[in-house]
Amino acid sequence: MLAVFGVRTSSALLGSWTVSRVRFLHSLSGMTVAQIDEEVAKLLELKAKLGGDDGKHQFVLKTPKGTRDYNPKQMAIREKVFSTIIHCFKRHGAETIDTPVFELKETLTGKYGEDSKLIYDLKDQGGELLSLRYDLTVPFARYLAMNKITNIKRYHIAKVYRRDNPAMTRGRYREFYQCDFDIAGQYDAMIPDAECLKIVYEILRELDLGDFRIKVNDRRILDGMFAVCGVPDDKFRTICSTVDKLDKMPWEDVKKEMVNEKGLSEAAADQIGTYVSMQGGMDLAERLLQDPKMSQSKQACAGLTDIKLLFSYLQIFQITDKVVFDLSLARGLDYYTGVIYEALLTQAGVAPVVEAQNGAPGSTEESVSVGSVAGGGRYDGLVGMFDPKGRKVPCVGVSIGIERIFSIMEQKAEACAEKVRTTEVQVMVASAQKNLLEERLKLVTELWNAGIKAEVMYKKNPKLLSQLQHCEESGIPLVAILGEQELKDGVVKLRVVANREEVDISRGDLVEEIKRRTS
Amino acid sequence: MLAVFGVRTSSALLGSWTVSRVRFLHSLSGMTVAQIDEEVAKLLELKAKLGGDDGKHQFVLKTPKGTRDYNPKQMAIREKVFSTIIHCFKRHGAETIDTPVFELKETLTGKYGEDSKLIYDLKDQGGELLSLRYDLTVPFARYLAMNKITNIKRYHIAKVYRRDNPAMTRGRYREFYQCDFDIAGQYDAMIPDAECLKIVYEILRELDLGDFRIKVNDRRILDGMFAVCGVPDDKFRTICSTVDKLDKMPWEDVKKEMVNEKGLSEAAADQIGTYVSMQGGMDLAERLLQDPKMSQSKQACAGLTDIKLLFSYLQIFQITDKVVFDLSLARGLDYYTGVIYEALLTQAGVAPVVEAQNGAPGSTEESVSVGSVAGGGRYDGLVGMFDPKGRKVPCVGVSIGIERIFSIMEQKAEACAEKVRTTEVQVMVASAQKNLLEERLKLVTELWNAGIKAEVMYKKNPKLLSQLQHCEESGIPLVAILGEQELKDGVVKLRVVANREEVDISRGDLVEEIKRRTS
Repeated sequence: MLAVFGVRTSSALLGSWTVSRVRFLHSLSGMTVAQIDEEVAKLLELKAKLGGDDGKHQFVLKTPKGTRDYNPKQMAIREKVFSTIIHCFKRHGAETIDTPVFELKETLTGKYGEDSKLIYDLKDQGGELLSLRYDLTVPFARYLAMNKITNIKRYHIAKVYRRDNPAMTRGRYREFYQCDFDIAGQYDAMIPDAECLKIVYEILRELDLGDFRIKVNDRRILDGMFAVCGVPDDKFRTICSTVDKLDKMPWEDVKKEMVNEKGLSEAAADQIGTYVSMQGGMDLAERLLQDPKMSQSKQACAGLTDIKLLFSYLQIFQITDKVVFDLSLARGLDYYTGVIYEALLTQAGVAPVVEAQNGAPGSTEESVSVGSVAGGGRYDGLVGMFDPKGRKVPCVGVSIGIERIFSIMEQKAEACAEKVRTTEVQVMVASAQKNLLEERLKLVTELWNAGIKAEVMYKKNPKLLSQLQHCEESGIPLVAILGEQELKDGVVKLRVVANREEVDISRGDLVEEIKRRTS
Repeated sequence: MLAVFGVRTSSALLGSWTVSRVRFLHSLSGMTVAQIDEEVAKLLELKAKLGGDDGKHQFVLKTPKGTRDYNPKQMAIREKVFSTIIHCFKRHGAETIDTPVFELKETLTGKYGEDSKLIYDLKDQGGELLSLRYDLTVPFARYLAMNKITNIKRYHIAKVYRRDNPAMTRGRYREFYQCDFDIAGQYDAMIPDAECLKIVYEILRELDLGDFRIKVNDRRILDGMFAVCGVPDDKFRTICSTVDKLDKMPWEDVKKEMVNEKGLSEAAADQIGTYVSMQGGMDLAERLLQDPKMSQSKQACAGLTDIKLLFSYLQIFQITDKVVFDLSLARGLDYYTGVIYEALLTQAGVAPVVEAQNGAPGSTEESVSVGSVAGGGRYDGLVGMFDPKGRKVPCVGVSIGIERIFSIMEQKAEACAEKVRTTEVQVMVASAQKNLLEERLKLVTELWNAGIKAEVMYKKNPKLLSQLQHCEESGIPLVAILGEQELKDGVVKLRVVANREEVDISRGDLVEEIKRRTS
């Protein structure tokens, strides 16, 4: 990922200085390899900025912090994952849209709370002030309001940008894909919400990432719970974000934060503690509707009634085996107004280790939970923020955490030493003899024109061995070999790379034979 | 594309002021509709910035200048175009990669000559200085150098960013897709170059955009020509960019610019004029190799010899009917070192009107020529600019001007009133009776689980008519209708939307029947 050049006389000196400083830092704080890499990158950048002592411009050959290139193998995996997900979205009747990578800065203002500091702004080069999109939900809401759309079921797969602390080994980047499915429109309660969960279930099953569960809760239940536990109204949000840490911290620490940092009474915290330890299904929702305290909150009752209804649809959709009503689920973003959910991988060995937060600025949605691979909820107010008359368009949606899924799939591919093909070439047109370039080009033209995926080496007289080696390396299954004799006989020698079998095929039958063998 | 709100008491006043100013501007300079739209947008922005007199925040609901959303219909067209192009790239054995949307500012520095002023920079928010990518070629070269790759055949489809004067009605945006295919590696002359042209030919044929031709030239021939015509070395580049205008200006004007603005002698200009009017094929290359003046330049001879060889391969590829050797072709970018080419649509009615340049800053590649839909060439030096030891990796590639193609395809779809489907739903699960929501959900679950693309209305008791209307509007071919009787009989009434035929299908056979009818 990193290469430096332009250093001449001073490189050895600076190099050893870098290493010793890294050692020092390492011994100091027990950094991870990824952290060391980043420290090295920073130092090398600094070095590059200082310039060498030979006056030559110092240049760091790298991608920006928190970003990466996708090589062909990674692209092959990425395309496979996208294909599975898009297929599911289409099975559920979704259309797709696209929006620009940047929006007017104003469009993003006031939508992300504290996380706004993580937005990338563009330089003011005259004209409008712009920012890179932070998610796909706000642009979607802007799109609906701008085009006065009140009904749509759409997916959107695109990159979003956050100036967050990257943790690339765990699939957390500053540039990363989001993969969103949303249903906008005024419908009967919980039907679209249930379909979103069905989609998450189908996708995680089909991607075969191991066992998972989907946690469900409702913003109104959380708010109602805070109210009946005696949390002052103005502390709902901050207490909610503390509850959100239950994934990463034991209850004792969460309680401490509530009491010591956020000034909640011990009694209120304990009451919250009782509730947030509850998990169940429709039965739990029913029990809480009878709960003497909880049932005092109208909001909570509305949420609980919807959870009951939701579970009745989830039963019909045959997905209750993986869905759990969990009162500790409290997603970060401000715009949720109803049902919220989050999917987690539960299989050991797949879920990455617990992240040391170290007061890292802006732990974003992706880091909400260990092994979290999807999340979403209902946001009925967001579109209204963009509408001139404040007209609301109720929305519910889900975002698939595709980068983490890529990471897992890449690790799996490496682990099982599975050969990932990066091209789809069916046949290589080759020759063992010299001066047959034109004949090879003629044959490959015939194949291309017939829709066959075919390659030819860009050499006048390549060695047969190097042509065959290329096939082995890139998984090309067939070789069409030409020689003087074959040309005279009007045939082509078709070789199967896997078993080295060769058979003469008449030139007129070649296309059909290749299609037959590679279908 | 534009909506403004937040204006209360003052809106009528400001509105009429805007209109009168636009009228004034219009009468002033005979603006196009697109230009007026942009002027209006600017004024409304200004209005929004000034704020209303009621203290309410003024907000313009729009996408940034020069950008657009893609609605589902546009996405359907976009996906069709991409699919054709990607299919062709894969037929020729290409892998794909992806790079970040921004690069270190330094990576882009010194690669685009004058056009550098069109690069979008990110705001300095601490850390590295970043810029949005301006094309896919420079990131590709950076990728090759960084990963020490010396051989690859790759395509890359992604958005690039230019702070250019947008002309959106003609498909010129500030955010737009590029669609690049490149072959990197040390190979025998003109074989990969010929394949790039073959690919352009195949794509333009398959997209069915009407007749086209592909102009070919060579940087070395241009430079040699300038040398033998007496152009001073330091004026090659500026004279080259004047020649580049022959697409849009008559020779007299081009000559005037050479003589009056760039200080070339009349004789030299006339000599250039004779050469740049030449068009032909292999025969022209042969004739010029015998030309007493041209043959004095070693560079020109090398270029001409390669053009001859190129045409011999193009003959084998069966594409010479559309390719013409044209000495007036002079592409703008600095990094080309050998063969250059450009594809143009020639059919009347499709190619947009000649663009009034009006001294617009930075006419970019996309605007090089009326109807230009693809371009590229050989750039053997670019990767070396990134390599610490200056090691060169010869490259040749082509970029498909996909935005212009989208525009044409959209116009075509509109013109023939062709219905573009935006979903792939095969069947709608419906009911004519009340209280069958659960039964509808059960059936749609069966269908989804069997891989059928199916929809159900998110209403407890939707009207049959509205369910059928939805099918007509979105082109869903089949409706599976449930009623008490059907449930009792264990059947589903399958209705063909097109002809309203209905037939009872036993529930167990439904999936197969839907597959059969929609395959």
